Amino acid sequence: MSEIETSAALTPRYDANGLIAAVAQDADTGQVLMLAWMNAEALAATLATKRATYWSRSRAALWVKGETSGHTQEVIEARIDCDQDAVLLRVRQTGPACHTGAQSCFYRRIEAGELVKT
Amino acid sequence: MSEIETSAALTPRYDANGLIAAVAQDADTGQVLMLAWMNAEALAATLATKRATYWSRSRAALWVKGETSGHTQEVIEARIDCDQDAVLLRVRQTGPACHTGAQSCFYRRIEAGELVKT
Repeated sequence: MSEIETSAALTPRYDANGLIAAVAQDADTGQVLMLAWMNAEALAATLATKRATYWSRSRAALWVKGETSGHTQEVIEARIDCDQDAVLLRVRQTGPACHTGAQSCFYRRIEAGELVKT
Repeated sequence: MSEIETSAALTPRYDANGLIAAVAQDADTGQVLMLAWMNAEALAATLATKRATYWSRSRAALWVKGETSGHTQEVIEARIDCDQDAVLLRVRQTGPACHTGAQSCFYRRIEAGELVKT
């Protein structure tokens, strides 16, 4: 295995835009809630405050999840994957995670090429 | 809500490289196994064959998960998120999902800025 896979050093591999993908999972139910993006500042803020903080690509701004909606994510545990280019947050979600009001952003399944609400 | 959030039409929003992030979750245990990438061909193959197929960015080639290792992922359900730029696969995993031999690629948690094996 390579150094990055075994190391105890946190060396995230950000993409060309300086971002890393972050998956939020409900720590209690295991439900995958959303996938968002972090830059180094967002990851540092998430780890320091234990409140999930992302980088909003559409607004090009730091995004403390729930700052306006109140639908915050308390970070119970943060993990990083083998090659350090993806983050997994196990969170305690207040209210729905999705801005549409759905508990999870993944509220449609793909069935025979079409989308069906779950 | 916008059309893309409510529509029954599958219209994935690929990034500038033609890729969409895909999260694989164990359908039985709920464990998040890995995050990988798909292009349109990989997504189509995944949906058609019910075997998780990704785009390997390092090899720049289609990657039928487990084709060489035998560690396949049978797709029980595929979902897409609100703005259709992320895919969630609920899979039945044969063997470990991670090429390191770990069950999940997320085998290290971030603790006080360092990585600790779980």
